[in-house]
Amino acid sequence: MAWEFWSKQLDEEELVENGYEDYSSSSRAAGMNGNGPSKLVDPLEDLVPGVGTYEDFNTIDWVREKSKDRDRHREITNKSRQSTVALLHSLCDAFSGWLLMLLVGLMSGALAGGIDIAAHWLSDLKGGVCLTDFWFNHEHCCWMSNETFQERDRCPEWQSWAELITGKSEGAFAYIMNYMMYIFWALLFSLLAVTLVRAFAPYACGSGIPEIKTILSGFIIRGYLGKWTLIIKTITLVLAVSSGLSLGKEGPLVHVACCCANILCHLFTKYRKNEAKRREVSSGAVHVTVLAVSYYFPLKTLWRRLVLFYVEFHAPWHLVELAPFVLLGIFGGKSTRLGHYPVIEVLVVTAMTALLAFPNSYTRMSGAELISELFNDCSLLDSSQLCGYKQVNTGVGNSLADRPAGENLYTALWQLALALIFKMLITVITFGMKVPSGLFIPSMAVGAIAGRLLGVGMEQLAYYHHDWVIFKGWCSQGADCITPGLYAMVGAAACLGGVTRMTVSLVVIMFELTGGLEYIVPLMAATMTSKWVADAFGREGIYEAHIRLNGYPFLEPKEEFEHSSLAVDVMRPRRSDPALAVLTQDGMTVGEVETLVESTHYSGFPVVVSQESQRLVGFVFRRDLLISIDNARKRQEGIVSTSQVFFSEHAPSQPPDAPPPLRLRGIMDLSPFTVTDHTPMDITVDIFRKLGLRQCLVTHNGRLLGIITKKDILKHMAQIANRDPDSILFN
Amino acid sequence: MAWEFWSKQLDEEELVENGYEDYSSSSRAAGMNGNGPSKLVDPLEDLVPGVGTYEDFNTIDWVREKSKDRDRHREITNKSRQSTVALLHSLCDAFSGWLLMLLVGLMSGALAGGIDIAAHWLSDLKGGVCLTDFWFNHEHCCWMSNETFQERDRCPEWQSWAELITGKSEGAFAYIMNYMMYIFWALLFSLLAVTLVRAFAPYACGSGIPEIKTILSGFIIRGYLGKWTLIIKTITLVLAVSSGLSLGKEGPLVHVACCCANILCHLFTKYRKNEAKRREVSSGAVHVTVLAVSYYFPLKTLWRRLVLFYVEFHAPWHLVELAPFVLLGIFGGKSTRLGHYPVIEVLVVTAMTALLAFPNSYTRMSGAELISELFNDCSLLDSSQLCGYKQVNTGVGNSLADRPAGENLYTALWQLALALIFKMLITVITFGMKVPSGLFIPSMAVGAIAGRLLGVGMEQLAYYHHDWVIFKGWCSQGADCITPGLYAMVGAAACLGGVTRMTVSLVVIMFELTGGLEYIVPLMAATMTSKWVADAFGREGIYEAHIRLNGYPFLEPKEEFEHSSLAVDVMRPRRSDPALAVLTQDGMTVGEVETLVESTHYSGFPVVVSQESQRLVGFVFRRDLLISIDNARKRQEGIVSTSQVFFSEHAPSQPPDAPPPLRLRGIMDLSPFTVTDHTPMDITVDIFRKLGLRQCLVTHNGRLLGIITKKDILKHMAQIANRDPDSILFN
Repeated sequence: MAWEFWSKQLDEEELVENGYEDYSSSSRAAGMNGNGPSKLVDPLEDLVPGVGTYEDFNTIDWVREKSKDRDRHREITNKSRQSTVALLHSLCDAFSGWLLMLLVGLMSGALAGGIDIAAHWLSDLKGGVCLTDFWFNHEHCCWMSNETFQERDRCPEWQSWAELITGKSEGAFAYIMNYMMYIFWALLFSLLAVTLVRAFAPYACGSGIPEIKTILSGFIIRGYLGKWTLIIKTITLVLAVSSGLSLGKEGPLVHVACCCANILCHLFTKYRKNEAKRREVSSGAVHVTVLAVSYYFPLKTLWRRLVLFYVEFHAPWHLVELAPFVLLGIFGGKSTRLGHYPVIEVLVVTAMTALLAFPNSYTRMSGAELISELFNDCSLLDSSQLCGYKQVNTGVGNSLADRPAGENLYTALWQLALALIFKMLITVITFGMKVPSGLFIPSMAVGAIAGRLLGVGMEQLAYYHHDWVIFKGWCSQGADCITPGLYAMVGAAACLGGVTRMTVSLVVIMFELTGGLEYIVPLMAATMTSKWVADAFGREGIYEAHIRLNGYPFLEPKEEFEHSSLAVDVMRPRRSDPALAVLTQDGMTVGEVETLVESTHYSGFPVVVSQESQRLVGFVFRRDLLISIDNARKRQEGIVSTSQVFFSEHAPSQPPDAPPPLRLRGIMDLSPFTVTDHTPMDITVDIFRKLGLRQCLVTHNGRLLGIITKKDILKHMAQIANRDPDSILFN
Repeated sequence: MAWEFWSKQLDEEELVENGYEDYSSSSRAAGMNGNGPSKLVDPLEDLVPGVGTYEDFNTIDWVREKSKDRDRHREITNKSRQSTVALLHSLCDAFSGWLLMLLVGLMSGALAGGIDIAAHWLSDLKGGVCLTDFWFNHEHCCWMSNETFQERDRCPEWQSWAELITGKSEGAFAYIMNYMMYIFWALLFSLLAVTLVRAFAPYACGSGIPEIKTILSGFIIRGYLGKWTLIIKTITLVLAVSSGLSLGKEGPLVHVACCCANILCHLFTKYRKNEAKRREVSSGAVHVTVLAVSYYFPLKTLWRRLVLFYVEFHAPWHLVELAPFVLLGIFGGKSTRLGHYPVIEVLVVTAMTALLAFPNSYTRMSGAELISELFNDCSLLDSSQLCGYKQVNTGVGNSLADRPAGENLYTALWQLALALIFKMLITVITFGMKVPSGLFIPSMAVGAIAGRLLGVGMEQLAYYHHDWVIFKGWCSQGADCITPGLYAMVGAAACLGGVTRMTVSLVVIMFELTGGLEYIVPLMAATMTSKWVADAFGREGIYEAHIRLNGYPFLEPKEEFEHSSLAVDVMRPRRSDPALAVLTQDGMTVGEVETLVESTHYSGFPVVVSQESQRLVGFVFRRDLLISIDNARKRQEGIVSTSQVFFSEHAPSQPPDAPPPLRLRGIMDLSPFTVTDHTPMDITVDIFRKLGLRQCLVTHNGRLLGIITKKDILKHMAQIANRDPDSILFN
């Protein structure tokens, strides 16, 4: 029932997108005429469907969309003064934003919870099965069991595959049996994931964050936030995570939440019909998800102790440490040679991962578990291998005092070192495969391993050489000088910062994770340094690199435009090109207009007073023009190729036997943005960025000279940076 | 020595402001020509001083300033490739921002600390004096004494005035004596404060936050952030706080920090010469101060306990409670009838405050102390009057369990109720007087008192009627159901929110204060509700009201422009007015230009191709025009009233006996912003807001039609809101 309702809503939306809905047209016409909602709108134009919508892989015009919404709001407010029903409608309209955000929160929260539970269960399924209820994961299965606390992860109800099939749980044969089953399940899951993605929703692969950044900035990718992407991404994310590949689910969860927001937008007219409003909701969903992910992360209670002296150790080490993370950032965007055969690629990588990960307990466990283990602060009773210190009789001393490392800890360190190399390589290979994959957890894991290794090293150094200069004064024997877990945390933050180049948001996230203001300063220091080091290697983060490689039209908000070029240097047509294709406000016939439109591929055309004066009147979108002419030819009597087209307020005088003229002023944007040819490009870029423009016309002494689009700007920027300007693919 | 250095720097700055410095002119000319730093700049114009600066009470053009800075940066970067010295210079330049922020932090931190110490000492001086060292405050004086812990605030070294003069410390006579001395000191301090402000720095009065908001948005008020304002504000703030008036020092501290930032900007060329950059630094200083104030606030450790059940009680109470706070917000901006006699006003209010505040211990203590007391959670051993509960034998029960109120508590409640009425009235009267005064602490105190009263009421209700429906299920006997301190906290936040209409920033501040994520939800609920209630009474917060009453040109960033007017309805000239005053790019003489400039009061003039075509070429500022002509008359040979002025690239042809023409293209902005006459005003307002424009030209079909300035927009908005459009005073 609910599903049917939704399907209906979605189909309706597709109708709108395909142009069989008339709201936007009338609203926009009114808005652009600016003459109030009903005064001057031609009743004919009211019926033209699809005017004011966008084609796929195009950029929306924020000013136009926002203006549309304001017109709509004004209309509702005006009406609400007239009747009680309209007043109620206006109240509902005002309230719908809150309701929508609530629904988005509930839906994406439920999905995230479901993904988490399912991934846990499937992950554990690689190792064994619960005999009482097969849909229980390892922990839940043994939860019911009456075993003691220490043995909670071993219970008779949970049987490994070797145990189940051969009845033996120990020995080399059982180990190999389990190993094989582990690889089998991993391959099965990843095969399913890649097949589903390929068959039903190619947009479901990757983390989706670069695309979402681009979409939120105003680009249109139809279906990227659609229902199929949502369904397939949810399922395949579970499978990909469960297959043991070195990938995280946090990034894809952002995509899932965005899909939820986009789909739920269809329930409310206010959002269904406005690209800008829908992007606002999606942007809200992204922020909520990032916060929710960080809240959900089970590390918050681990860190409450204040450690004072570690800041001194930052600078020397993470400058050295960061090189590998930066490499991760650089290579992260590239795909492997197997990229052309995605299914085989996924299977090979999965097999490799499973083969190498199984023997090492630190790679076998999930990324979140690993991080949690690495962040852990060893208390005296901790039985973890990482806490395998020798017991020293320090009398009444601090229970957390530095202690010498024991056998267990040395083993753990070796395993960690191997895990570090393995994780780094496999993460680089994994990212870019055709399955849903996030980068947060894997890169945090890499950073945390490196940090923990260094932390333990420092601790041992401090224990054995507490008379060294650097330890003197604050690190006496029997004191707790170094906390390896804190090093792990700083390492994780630094690595994540190096890969994504987030600084402030990262600090906020880590702040949420650790729940205390005490760590703000070291975390900020770490992320700032990592960003600087990474910037020295290459200016862009992995998401920006991804956007660039895909040729999406995205104007980086922070990037300063350093070059001293002028608008005239960037605009089309160039000096050697033919003149700009323009329409005149009267004097052209339908046939001439159609020829002009068909002979070019531009998305829109300026309208001028006359070819001689080149004084600008307005701007018409290609799509709107074609739809309107097509519509007029079909429905309006007497419109033929020789009919005059006019954009002026009054019909031009015509010979009496001429066919009736076609009035198109309603689809013309009467307030196109203009800059003069002498405007420096840095100002122009600023205008594009701040106002969210799609194009801007260039004038000289009041005459139209050319046009600059977002694509032109991106091409120009690529050229300055010595990149291929043709890498910018879309409008 | 240091002072001399500074003075020199400041004087240099004044020179720049008064127009005897040439950097800006050349930079701007280069920037606006957009032809690189040195290519087309006329060597003559290089010498014209003052071009590109602004007059007092005018709005800066953000685009122009930012462009100036980018040109400067580009020049330094280009030079740095040529020599090592230039490279070092460029590195210093890049580093100067960090150094500047560090200096600002140190200086304003030191001043804030000094103000705090001095205010403590002077406040205590009203009650008595330290015999050992008179510059010790009460606490420090008794710190050294060997008394027991409970008696720490009573020690022989600290003597009240009655004790010192008459030798008696008890009895009615001593009380009256102390009362008199208290009033005497209060009057002395406030008289000094108001006199100093009137004599030396009239800008030092009030909190300064509305003016700083306006200045940061681009307005120029010379001297508002100057050295005299800083010195006088620091001194008088101490005096005003010490006089016992109901005012806080947090708001004025923001002004002090801004002054520090502005003064320190003079040390760095990058910031001295750019209005936009200087505003960026000041804005940083504001944020740092707000954070620092909240850190410094000594409440953080008080709140660590999680209270779960109070959210349910919010909605009912603060809807009722908020009415008085809203009144505070409404009346807060108005000044009293005594406003015309500021000295007498201050003395009368101080006398009234001292007279009424002394007998009640809750009004006698400082605002911060009061808030701290009200937020306090009563433990069993607490000896404060507010914790005067009856001891009940609940056995092993919770030491914080709800207990019945005792005698002491009832007395305290009466005093609090009186304090609430007194504080509300006196705060309204105090705010708007001609002394430095903040609103944070007083309004938080009012909210905290109301909250605490309600909290205790709820607690007693829960104790005596724990079988009522609302308490059932979670509040059994002997449990700690209600924490009155938490109610006080929520009340404080709600009241502050109602007065200032901050929501997110307020939650962040309160979050900093309380140091835990646990309170985020109730605080958000409280501040949101308070904002909604307050908005229902009137849309603007106290700072916005202040800005409006003063007629400053400030475009509220959140305010939506609801009206459907077009640019043509707002622009000047109106339909009935004479035509727009324009310059032509050639054909005008110096004398004609001077006549035109003198016969109008506009800040700038558009330049058109010719009077007939009205095609726009550029825009010239009045100030730049006057300075350039004046300079040319003095220094350039042959420039007389009949000399031709030309803005075109090439000199017009002239008869051979004509005087040499004057070239002014260098001072013309070649990229003025234009919108078409059909542009809806909501889009225009958006452009002004986002780009920080000062003015925008209006065209129709490529012809210049009129001009819209920020002032025109504000006037139009005032008109729509049925306010007097002439209340907007400045450009």
